[in-house]
Amino acid sequence: MKAEIVSIGTELLLGEITDTNASYLASQLPLLGIDLYWISQVGDNQKRLVEVLKRAWQRSDLILTSGGLGPTEDDLTREAVAEMLGEKLEVNTELEGEITKFFAQRGVKMPQSNIKQAMLIPSASALNNNQGTAPGWWVEKEGCILIAMPGPPGEMQPMWQTEVLPKLRLRFKKAIIFSRTIKTFGLSEAAVGELVSPLLSSTNPTLAIYAKADGIHLRLTAKVKNQSEAEATISHNEARIKSILAEYIWGVDDDRLEALVGELLIKRGLSLAVMESCSGGLFSSTITDVPGSSAYFRGGIIAYSSKVKIANGVSPKLIADYGAVSPEVAGAMAEAARGRLVADIGVGITGVAGPDELEGKPVGTVCIGIDDGKKKKVVAGRYPGDRARIKRRATTAALFELKKVLVTY
Amino acid sequence: MKAEIVSIGTELLLGEITDTNASYLASQLPLLGIDLYWISQVGDNQKRLVEVLKRAWQRSDLILTSGGLGPTEDDLTREAVAEMLGEKLEVNTELEGEITKFFAQRGVKMPQSNIKQAMLIPSASALNNNQGTAPGWWVEKEGCILIAMPGPPGEMQPMWQTEVLPKLRLRFKKAIIFSRTIKTFGLSEAAVGELVSPLLSSTNPTLAIYAKADGIHLRLTAKVKNQSEAEATISHNEARIKSILAEYIWGVDDDRLEALVGELLIKRGLSLAVMESCSGGLFSSTITDVPGSSAYFRGGIIAYSSKVKIANGVSPKLIADYGAVSPEVAGAMAEAARGRLVADIGVGITGVAGPDELEGKPVGTVCIGIDDGKKKKVVAGRYPGDRARIKRRATTAALFELKKVLVTY
Repeated sequence: MKAEIVSIGTELLLGEITDTNASYLASQLPLLGIDLYWISQVGDNQKRLVEVLKRAWQRSDLILTSGGLGPTEDDLTREAVAEMLGEKLEVNTELEGEITKFFAQRGVKMPQSNIKQAMLIPSASALNNNQGTAPGWWVEKEGCILIAMPGPPGEMQPMWQTEVLPKLRLRFKKAIIFSRTIKTFGLSEAAVGELVSPLLSSTNPTLAIYAKADGIHLRLTAKVKNQSEAEATISHNEARIKSILAEYIWGVDDDRLEALVGELLIKRGLSLAVMESCSGGLFSSTITDVPGSSAYFRGGIIAYSSKVKIANGVSPKLIADYGAVSPEVAGAMAEAARGRLVADIGVGITGVAGPDELEGKPVGTVCIGIDDGKKKKVVAGRYPGDRARIKRRATTAALFELKKVLVTY
Repeated sequence: MKAEIVSIGTELLLGEITDTNASYLASQLPLLGIDLYWISQVGDNQKRLVEVLKRAWQRSDLILTSGGLGPTEDDLTREAVAEMLGEKLEVNTELEGEITKFFAQRGVKMPQSNIKQAMLIPSASALNNNQGTAPGWWVEKEGCILIAMPGPPGEMQPMWQTEVLPKLRLRFKKAIIFSRTIKTFGLSEAAVGELVSPLLSSTNPTLAIYAKADGIHLRLTAKVKNQSEAEATISHNEARIKSILAEYIWGVDDDRLEALVGELLIKRGLSLAVMESCSGGLFSSTITDVPGSSAYFRGGIIAYSSKVKIANGVSPKLIADYGAVSPEVAGAMAEAARGRLVADIGVGITGVAGPDELEGKPVGTVCIGIDDGKKKKVVAGRYPGDRARIKRRATTAALFELKKVLVTY
């Protein structure tokens, strides 16, 4: 089983965007035990696209393409696949109906050019796109499978997860590569590496360490025959990692901190409110990325100036005595958020996002407060990086501390 | 002049790293007026590597490779290039001396395996690596150039800048490729495509259309001899696009809406506050991504429930009469944000982020209000996609409308 990835779009050849679709798909194939042999990027040029696809069709059993499914003249993937296979493009009335409906729902008439997206060839069946108007293609012929997906990661990844992956799982369940990701926060990549160094030499399962936006991830990967064998193969090393990194671990695999926090709030029947300064709304935005968050998230106050902090219940004396960026004020912000927005738990985040230092406190200083009316927890940290990274770290740190508080209830 | 990029390393095929070397090099070639036709990634496998290099040697005039120059057994780029050209690898005593020195300076004896890195073939000359032990290769034969660089970006980029780029500049100072990106919001990709369709057939400049998170981008690309000629070549089509898409255009090239809004607020001496519902803090977070935004951004209220909206000055009657998701309430939220946070301009964002509809209003419905104390502007729209995309669209729409208001002052 040889797989190949073809990413399509002139912007890739101009270096305007980096091909994250290829690395995303590449990281998914091992889960199916499929070996990836080739990746290539090609521009919006039918001749070269057909040439690349022909070679892929000859040397590979599974071809994954992304890009070139848009409605404009320079979107040529359908045309190229049709030419490669010598088949004719025809409008599929069912697809045409769906696309027309997509526009109608928005009170817009379907632009004529979108009819392209309703076309299929005899060997192709459509893959549903719940994020846009471009359906994917599942092409099967001569024992070879070609799957064409849209270029925008926001459309490609959901299509892969919901439409493609389940279909492929049914076909390929021989030797699988099983992996378990353990997610931590609060230690540097190097520190984690040193703590688990005895496990790094293991060959099955292997252990890899990655620095991500939400902390350091450890990935155990085992090559096994089936799921039950998988658990057995990794369980020993997984247990060792969990005992070594204990309190730094916040989740595994697809866990997201904001979702775990949401589940705990629902389970405990608690509501949440926040007052944010340096994170500038990113904490609220991350919390509200979770569907159903309105059930427990009362709201937030972005107190980007001391005036707003004071107007919303933070003691001016506290700010005068300790400075706006202080554990004391973070705690007061948490308490004020609880009170102002009538929630069970309040979170306060204050710090220095940069580029300039504040009150003599260095860029990256972050203080977090959590208040439940009875207890107040306050932590302070210092994070590297630019504004965006500091905002992200402050948000992750607040979610991490909040989760630790919630599990104790 | 046809160029090709080959990135070498099994980790690329496992999706463990994203190939940023390819996008970096791709973005450099237009400055030399060199057309890039192909990019591919291949693993640490000599047979497939030779196959890929042979094809590149046949179809391209310039081949840029990165990776596979390390000292270990799975670093095979030198071996593969030698095999492709049928030449013999030999230790270059001068290189051997430099590598030995590199280790000596660190008080370490050169590991025997590093001798690989001192090897050359007759057609290759060495490229200095001031960041590591792996010299690059400049191979020239049969009118074709192959440049092999190390994989770590920290070594590849300096080698490109100091060793490769100057050499290539001497060869290719004919045409350069100049491009101008025009950024729009408010029209679908297809709608934009139809409006500018007469320009899509132009070959110099070419016109490409991309759907991005902040709207639809149009890119004009011209092949010219120098900068002054560049402006002349694109000015006509640029002017036509600007007249056709007029009010939908918000910026060009590297412009970011949140930064443009910030500049306008500073220029006008105005302060900003927001009350967000469906965008859940993303508007505030986007505004505060801009360094110095604390100069004009007073703060925000994430009013994720009607309770919080009312507690912060939105009339309960308005919510009862029109619903929380209505132009009327969006306007009232803008006005309340102004008042509560003492700002010159208030923005209100309310809508249905999904997954479930609200008040019988479909997912994706978004209402935006802007209030400056004298005038109130209200717009309503409907956007496709999941929560994350609807939040992003609502934020972009609010920034877009806010910019339109600010330019009129």
